[in-house]
Amino acid sequence: MTVRVGVIGTGIMGADHINTLHRQVTGATVTVVADLDLDRARGVAAALPGVRATDDGVALIGDPDVDAVVVASADATHADLTVAAVQAGKPVVCEKPLAPTLPECLRVVQAELKAVGAGGPALVSVGFMRRFDPGYLELKSALEAGVCGTPLLVHCVSRGVSSAPGATSELSVTGSAIHEFDVVPWLLGARIVEVGWHAPRSTGAVPGMQDPQLILLRTADGAMTTVEVFLNARYGYDIRCEVVGDRGAIALTNPARVVADADRRRATGYPADWRPRFADAYRIELQAWVDAVAAGRPPPLASARDGLIASAVADAVIASMREGGRTVAVALPGLDPPAT
Amino acid sequence: MTVRVGVIGTGIMGADHINTLHRQVTGATVTVVADLDLDRARGVAAALPGVRATDDGVALIGDPDVDAVVVASADATHADLTVAAVQAGKPVVCEKPLAPTLPECLRVVQAELKAVGAGGPALVSVGFMRRFDPGYLELKSALEAGVCGTPLLVHCVSRGVSSAPGATSELSVTGSAIHEFDVVPWLLGARIVEVGWHAPRSTGAVPGMQDPQLILLRTADGAMTTVEVFLNARYGYDIRCEVVGDRGAIALTNPARVVADADRRRATGYPADWRPRFADAYRIELQAWVDAVAAGRPPPLASARDGLIASAVADAVIASMREGGRTVAVALPGLDPPAT
Amino acid sequence: MTVRVGVIGTGIMGADHINTLHRQVTGATVTVVADLDLDRARGVAAALPGVRATDDGVALIGDPDVDAVVVASADATHADLTVAAVQAGKPVVCEKPLAPTLPECLRVVQAELKAVGAGGPALVSVGFMRRFDPGYLELKSALEAGVCGTPLLVHCVSRGVSSAPGATSELSVTGSAIHEFDVVPWLLGARIVEVGWHAPRSTGAVPGMQDPQLILLRTADGAMTTVEVFLNARYGYDIRCEVVGDRGAIALTNPARVVADADRRRATGYPADWRPRFADAYRIELQAWVDAVAAGRPPPLASARDGLIASAVADAVIASMREGGRTVAVALPGLDPPAT
Amino acid sequence: MTVRVGVIGTGIMGADHINTLHRQVTGATVTVVADLDLDRARGVAAALPGVRATDDGVALIGDPDVDAVVVASADATHADLTVAAVQAGKPVVCEKPLAPTLPECLRVVQAELKAVGAGGPALVSVGFMRRFDPGYLELKSALEAGVCGTPLLVHCVSRGVSSAPGATSELSVTGSAIHEFDVVPWLLGARIVEVGWHAPRSTGAVPGMQDPQLILLRTADGAMTTVEVFLNARYGYDIRCEVVGDRGAIALTNPARVVADADRRRATGYPADWRPRFADAYRIELQAWVDAVAAGRPPPLASARDGLIASAVADAVIASMREGGRTVAVALPGLDPPAT
Repeated sequence: MTVRVGVIGTGIMGADHINTLHRQVTGATVTVVADLDLDRARGVAAALPGVRATDDGVALIGDPDVDAVVVASADATHADLTVAAVQAGKPVVCEKPLAPTLPECLRVVQAELKAVGAGGPALVSVGFMRRFDPGYLELKSALEAGVCGTPLLVHCVSRGVSSAPGATSELSVTGSAIHEFDVVPWLLGARIVEVGWHAPRSTGAVPGMQDPQLILLRTADGAMTTVEVFLNARYGYDIRCEVVGDRGAIALTNPARVVADADRRRATGYPADWRPRFADAYRIELQAWVDAVAAGRPPPLASARDGLIASAVADAVIASMREGGRTVAVALPGLDPPAT
Repeated sequence: MTVRVGVIGTGIMGADHINTLHRQVTGATVTVVADLDLDRARGVAAALPGVRATDDGVALIGDPDVDAVVVASADATHADLTVAAVQAGKPVVCEKPLAPTLPECLRVVQAELKAVGAGGPALVSVGFMRRFDPGYLELKSALEAGVCGTPLLVHCVSRGVSSAPGATSELSVTGSAIHEFDVVPWLLGARIVEVGWHAPRSTGAVPGMQDPQLILLRTADGAMTTVEVFLNARYGYDIRCEVVGDRGAIALTNPARVVADADRRRATGYPADWRPRFADAYRIELQAWVDAVAAGRPPPLASARDGLIASAVADAVIASMREGGRTVAVALPGLDPPAT
Repeated sequence: MTVRVGVIGTGIMGADHINTLHRQVTGATVTVVADLDLDRARGVAAALPGVRATDDGVALIGDPDVDAVVVASADATHADLTVAAVQAGKPVVCEKPLAPTLPECLRVVQAELKAVGAGGPALVSVGFMRRFDPGYLELKSALEAGVCGTPLLVHCVSRGVSSAPGATSELSVTGSAIHEFDVVPWLLGARIVEVGWHAPRSTGAVPGMQDPQLILLRTADGAMTTVEVFLNARYGYDIRCEVVGDRGAIALTNPARVVADADRRRATGYPADWRPRFADAYRIELQAWVDAVAAGRPPPLASARDGLIASAVADAVIASMREGGRTVAVALPGLDPPAT
Repeated sequence: MTVRVGVIGTGIMGADHINTLHRQVTGATVTVVADLDLDRARGVAAALPGVRATDDGVALIGDPDVDAVVVASADATHADLTVAAVQAGKPVVCEKPLAPTLPECLRVVQAELKAVGAGGPALVSVGFMRRFDPGYLELKSALEAGVCGTPLLVHCVSRGVSSAPGATSELSVTGSAIHEFDVVPWLLGARIVEVGWHAPRSTGAVPGMQDPQLILLRTADGAMTTVEVFLNARYGYDIRCEVVGDRGAIALTNPARVVADADRRRATGYPADWRPRFADAYRIELQAWVDAVAAGRPPPLASARDGLIASAVADAVIASMREGGRTVAVALPGLDPPAT
């Protein structure tokens, strides 16, 4: 069975997903794409055979030619569209964040719960693609194999060349650091319970924006994580992760494939943004989602609950930001049963 | 249009291709698999929905449910099966080597020429998958961008854990070193014109087999290549390539994704064989082949002529082996127009 | 002129200094060694020609055959012996820490001030050898050359195989982290003004000891530093440092000299303790000290004031440790003129 | 006892040795320096206390204030000066090559034999400093520890930024590749018995000079070595060595101490010439020589016989160069007992 996918949002991320689904994912076909900017949607559709374009995401969700939905539109629309997909009974993968606010995330979780019942098959997945990155997967499996013993510390670094237009200190947290808030508990098997936010000297790249930020996380197992998020680091897109345990440490390597000797230097290159770095992760994630949808199995992606939990951590970090770096406990109101 | 693929040979390589086509390549479906060992073919077929098994490769080629053919059976069968596919007018990708002997390779080239005419659309592709490895592709594009200037030297290393049963000094050349004979001209844009074979002290791993071997190649541009092929290197599967030019050098990096600190060591891992190393290359190669077949475009893989040329180099290397390491010119009898 | 050096303390560190002075430093000769354990002193002396042994450090300082003094005895004795050397008018290099408590450090600074007057030639040096490590020196010079732009963040890691007998959470700070408290201001040219101490999940290696520890530093330029000190990391002795600026980042490399491929792994080794890692630093430091003493120039080592300042930071960190990780300002009572 | 050293030759290499002896080697003092260019000798002498200058190397050797001699003058003078030192009964370390021709090398060996008798204490050392490089020493000790099993292949690379004025194809061999001819037998414990010379496409940097060159060596144990010597590689001074055995491989790492992230690149630096790369090797070599001279022990440096043997290999390589790359056996005329 071929899964007929509708994609809402045809910006950089959405266009990337459409391309990946069309060219690299087996068992799926993109049938409808939607964008408020109808011309942009039409431009994307025209490049692919048999794809229709619309400016109405809700109509896309209801379209009989759409079996499953990808939400890659503006963050503010995530919750409404994801809830609409749930109410239509269609599997949906929503780009991170699940929603910009915790109450909205909760609304999605509750809508899914109402639609499928407790223990029912999940409809909602969240696009935390690092869970499908071959490097992170090897890191997790080395960890589980005991290579470094019991994890005590994690060091995460997320650096980019320059932040997107409209970047703010808060968006650094909800849009970028949130990947760490998902991946650290996934790696350690332990929820983040406490956070602290710190402001080093800031680059002047974006006036009014604190960049870099230094965030400390404590997980339920007692381990601590340092997170450096630095969106205007200029030199390249660079994601690092090291887990330090009581027997050793495990870290991601630099993923460069070639090294050049020239001009008195031995150098590898950095990509300009996340796409080359995580192209494999997106492809493998979407393939896993399509395979699960086709088979009627629960998708192995992050769930709505995982999206809610990551947003709760982001909320706590922003609270710490507003309160001078005070240590803030992560609150998960309304989850029943409680997150573990 | 979905390309219906028949795969001949369900050993390690064939089963890998079937799995890749089924799970990771879009636009293709495996319809028939063949193996002289019918039980093995049936076992592979049973794991996939709607796949038939046969012990008759020629019947598979003629099957109306087969649009295109993958030949991954024993080397000795490559030429006959590839010619049969050509005669049936079906696109075929043949695993390397195109054939174990040069006359057989020539037979394939001529059969294709007869079937499609000079300048006609190619039917035959050869599975030199390194041309699709992201690392080699970056190396080639850095080279073409002039990062190292004019190439003067290439250093290639192919090491494996242990050779396959029945390994011989000659099979090292025709089965393993042959990858270098294809990839070096592809990188440099210059044909190999002269070779020399050298025997260092040999590991005792396989009695009677010279291992490692050291091969020198000269390309038409005057550059020289050192090739170390060492199939029983024990420590891991390890492929290296460095191009040295008059301005600098470019090399593949070690592709390990994680590094572990433990027991007084900082270590990355090596795979046990080629599959993890070249999984991406095989997937991308097969996707490119399927895309081209579906679109009626000439496949961007190595051609039958490329396969013939690599085998001619292998022949010259074996001649050098038999004549005490004498420098041997590469002969390309029967090619019209001559290879350039 | 040959500088006749007396060395107090013949434990691991002292014996190492004696050996370095004797075998690798030009312009110096060790004449007297002292240790409370006279047998140990005699054992060390016997191995070298013309060296006398004593159990009386103060007598050594007064010995007419001693031009300059190295203090490598127990931390608790540092202040008294260094003051005695100052009062004898003899140049002295004291191993870090200058003294275990801030008042004692202040006593040394004041004794030196009294002996030589404000602006007088320094007599006291402190053994913060990292300032002479070729790696740290290159890091500092790349920083000063603007390679990474304005420093915003520093990440320091100090890991060891196992802590010395009697290790405590406080000794981690005063004995190990103190190297970072000296080297970070030296690198950045900015004093540490504020600290915070954090306790991740602890290894159980030493009951009652918090290990690893995570320390945040803020320097007067606004930059922040993360310091991980982990004395029982088991896997090896491993010192890391990365400075992140607004244009890029600079880091120490792993200093291993050979890499081995074996057993499915590519690995470099770690030393078991600090001696191989910092052998060059100690040698170059002692040579620089001897050269300065011989020439009557002020030694380019860390000064007593530097030692006092590092101890003031350590005090603040321990205060934070005792107050649940509260942010603590670094106080420098009694320094006149105030430290900048 | 302080060894009073006379240094002949105050060019780059000689000035470097004088500086190293004066500033970093204990137990030695430079008393006299000689150079045909007396002004240059005087300039060097003036910078150091108590050093006399002369333009007469032979007079220096006879000077009563000279206990031991360093020969760092033009290659053509090596043999005469070394023989003069031997006849004066003074220990001498001669920069490589021991002499430009094999007969001259033999003359030195015979002069030493005559002076000290068979089995007598060696007077002549040859400056093959790689034997004292910490990286090569670790490589040798890993090899001896069996880390890679029995050596089968060695890969050596010597690249420089640009060749010295007057460079020729032959001088590449006698001046640069000769380091490999000494270090490979030292590593493997086996003499080089057979060589072959090959000419890849040449850089146009120095008209008439073949650069790079590719040399194959066979040692008495059957192992083969590939040597790439490329003096005008432009990008940096870069020395590599890998030994491949039947259980694994061991290689030198890149010795850079810091790595910088900037401008879309992660890069380490290369030195412009050999001095930073081998500064430690020269220091340790000279210290070992001075220590041995002071103690009356045989110096642990390469001997005159080692220098002769390396020159015999160079001779064979040049013979191969002149005869179209023919394999040439290494002849050692006149050595009694024969080299092993």
